[in-house]
Amino acid sequence: MTYENTDKKTLASQLKSLWSEYERIKSKGYKLDLTRGKPCPEQLELSNCVLTALSGDNCISKDGVDCRNYGVLDGLPEVKELFSELLDIPAENIIVGGNSSLNLMYDTIVRAMLFGVSGRELPWSRVEGGVKFLCPTPGYDRHFAICETLGIKMIPVAMKDDGPDMDTVEDLVSSDESIKGIWCVPKHSNPTGITYSDDVVRRFAALRPKAKDFCIFWDNAYAVHDLYSDGDKLLSIFDEAAKIGPESENMIYYFASTSKITFPGAGVAIIAASKENIADIKRIVAVQTIGYDKLNQLRHVRCFPNAAAVRRQMELHAKILRPKFEIVKNILSRELDGTGAAVWSNPKGGYFVSLDVMSGCATRVYELCRDAGVRLTDVGATFPYSHDPLDKNLRIAPTYLSNDDLTTAIYILTTCIKIAAIEKCLKA
Amino acid sequence: MTYENTDKKTLASQLKSLWSEYERIKSKGYKLDLTRGKPCPEQLELSNCVLTALSGDNCISKDGVDCRNYGVLDGLPEVKELFSELLDIPAENIIVGGNSSLNLMYDTIVRAMLFGVSGRELPWSRVEGGVKFLCPTPGYDRHFAICETLGIKMIPVAMKDDGPDMDTVEDLVSSDESIKGIWCVPKHSNPTGITYSDDVVRRFAALRPKAKDFCIFWDNAYAVHDLYSDGDKLLSIFDEAAKIGPESENMIYYFASTSKITFPGAGVAIIAASKENIADIKRIVAVQTIGYDKLNQLRHVRCFPNAAAVRRQMELHAKILRPKFEIVKNILSRELDGTGAAVWSNPKGGYFVSLDVMSGCATRVYELCRDAGVRLTDVGATFPYSHDPLDKNLRIAPTYLSNDDLTTAIYILTTCIKIAAIEKCLKA
Repeated sequence: MTYENTDKKTLASQLKSLWSEYERIKSKGYKLDLTRGKPCPEQLELSNCVLTALSGDNCISKDGVDCRNYGVLDGLPEVKELFSELLDIPAENIIVGGNSSLNLMYDTIVRAMLFGVSGRELPWSRVEGGVKFLCPTPGYDRHFAICETLGIKMIPVAMKDDGPDMDTVEDLVSSDESIKGIWCVPKHSNPTGITYSDDVVRRFAALRPKAKDFCIFWDNAYAVHDLYSDGDKLLSIFDEAAKIGPESENMIYYFASTSKITFPGAGVAIIAASKENIADIKRIVAVQTIGYDKLNQLRHVRCFPNAAAVRRQMELHAKILRPKFEIVKNILSRELDGTGAAVWSNPKGGYFVSLDVMSGCATRVYELCRDAGVRLTDVGATFPYSHDPLDKNLRIAPTYLSNDDLTTAIYILTTCIKIAAIEKCLKA
Repeated sequence: MTYENTDKKTLASQLKSLWSEYERIKSKGYKLDLTRGKPCPEQLELSNCVLTALSGDNCISKDGVDCRNYGVLDGLPEVKELFSELLDIPAENIIVGGNSSLNLMYDTIVRAMLFGVSGRELPWSRVEGGVKFLCPTPGYDRHFAICETLGIKMIPVAMKDDGPDMDTVEDLVSSDESIKGIWCVPKHSNPTGITYSDDVVRRFAALRPKAKDFCIFWDNAYAVHDLYSDGDKLLSIFDEAAKIGPESENMIYYFASTSKITFPGAGVAIIAASKENIADIKRIVAVQTIGYDKLNQLRHVRCFPNAAAVRRQMELHAKILRPKFEIVKNILSRELDGTGAAVWSNPKGGYFVSLDVMSGCATRVYELCRDAGVRLTDVGATFPYSHDPLDKNLRIAPTYLSNDDLTTAIYILTTCIKIAAIEKCLKA
């Protein structure tokens, strides 16, 4: 029986015992952090080979470049080939950047602001009345922070189980020329974990935006980050775009990195785009830098010489992460099934579980957790301008904690969710 | 006797034998490259310790951060301390960035274009009529390329033996509000190799620009890159600015890197600025990236734990580079002294020798060298818009070639300089 269908007297009695349980928890003085999508220490150990891959004797790339010296703007050929094989994108459409795909995204928007997209249209900073981005929500806070900082107006679009609400996306982009882009995490989406369906990918490729410089920011952060061997399959947006033509291909800016394959913050990131866009990006990047860190590129390709090696690595990650996601799922289910106090995603990969509590309860749950020693991602973080209009979404990052700590943290979370839900029902 | 004072008959006869020497050289089919300020292979060997500094067991920073994971936006404390000791800048005024100081400079100008300098003034991209930079010339082509690409108008200012012509700099910045910055390579300047005098540094700190958002881009790329133990001493601009006050300190954006200490393109770069500016930079950088590559920072500080270790490394570099600069100086002197065909700089550090041939002769020398198998940096590269109004400056990069090849290349260069000079005198 859900809380909403339970009589108030029963609820009041349940609340009383929940409060006594809460006080017991609080007295333990926990300090548990569910905020960040960080690999756990065991995962870091999987990539130590990267640290010792190079010595003075083996820094020459496939085509004879000493990676200890200047040269090579857009990435070592063997690293392009690795990403090409892994992501099914032609190597010539790839630029290998530095350590951060977020930085490549920021730089891409900055170029659009100052130079216009591929020099085809007005720089976004000069568009009268400003420009707008569509933001499937809940989504990734750092995407939204880029827009907010650069003064790009964000329009939320609902996320469904198979991707963004494409009816809305199509309507908006075909009617408003100031809409210049959309943020997508197409596989194991942050935070809901869902993967875009074939139909959604095809509809993206088939978009006919009013803005000729409309960009699809395809942040495939979790491209190979499956928890199970029968992982979600994401259709290739470049393949679908190629069927339609250059205007479709030119919309796509594709990002990926090894941050959660090897070392976060010390991996290798890429941007992939149409041939025309790649040429345009390189023209500006050549002014921005002499080149990215080739030694780190070489380290990575020496440890992971082909896609099969990366996939083996991802199986090792999955072996560590699977139990964590299952702990979350099992405790949420055990404690909350039938209460109507929350619904949550059951991702088959990625780094997050998205949790919707009762409307108006997220802030209360956040505060209860905080006071009991469990840190959650700020309420609203998954929404443009950090504003969750229904005050209901919470993002759970289960990867960093030990399995024991995670078990404790999720149990505390469910206790707080129950308290907030019953409080709400009692007030109704 | 200079060529200009020699009778034409004698010159014609000298030219004839120079042409026959030139044809002999040409027949050898040389391929020698004097274009890039790249360390030579022997120099790269000096830093191999960086490659093997880390394994899985020693990636924890001084304050307990596992550098294999996310965290730390503005650099490891121990790396800030290293640069602080080396450059005499308080650690809290330093942000440790990625692998490229050029990228930090580009990013700094981009922030000024989009957000304004420290949010104090209008973004440069919105200034009616555009903004301007002063460019001491000859100077660094990549500085000029940033301005050109971003549409910042460049005003050349003469370089003297003790730095830029400060009378002109003071006049211009105090009268024109659209002048927003100046490029400086204050020590072993690129390409002339001179170091700014104490008086010049003091006059920089004492500038009273009409533009409140005027920036001094202090690219101290060769801060510790001395060829001789009695190296040039550069006054600390931050110390001088502190004597004047916050407006002076806020003008300074200071850059340095380990590109020519350890590995070009795989080192560590910093930006240093006033406390107020650092806070403002961090506010934007926090949106741009989750963090720079801490593992590479850690590698560097493990190999070079203090300034003394860096200075020892620089002595080893100097031991390799000194003979190269002396080869250039000796051959230029032996072949050209007294001819009036060229004057050149005698740098005590850095990576370049600047050579002024007779007016109108640089392009001719460049072409003669090219056809004889010696590549020089493009004529005009050291000037804004790649335009040397007198067609006389050439930049020589003597570091990369072996001593034998360098000897050959400089001899060929002098032969071409003589031919071009005599041709000019014969036409006069």
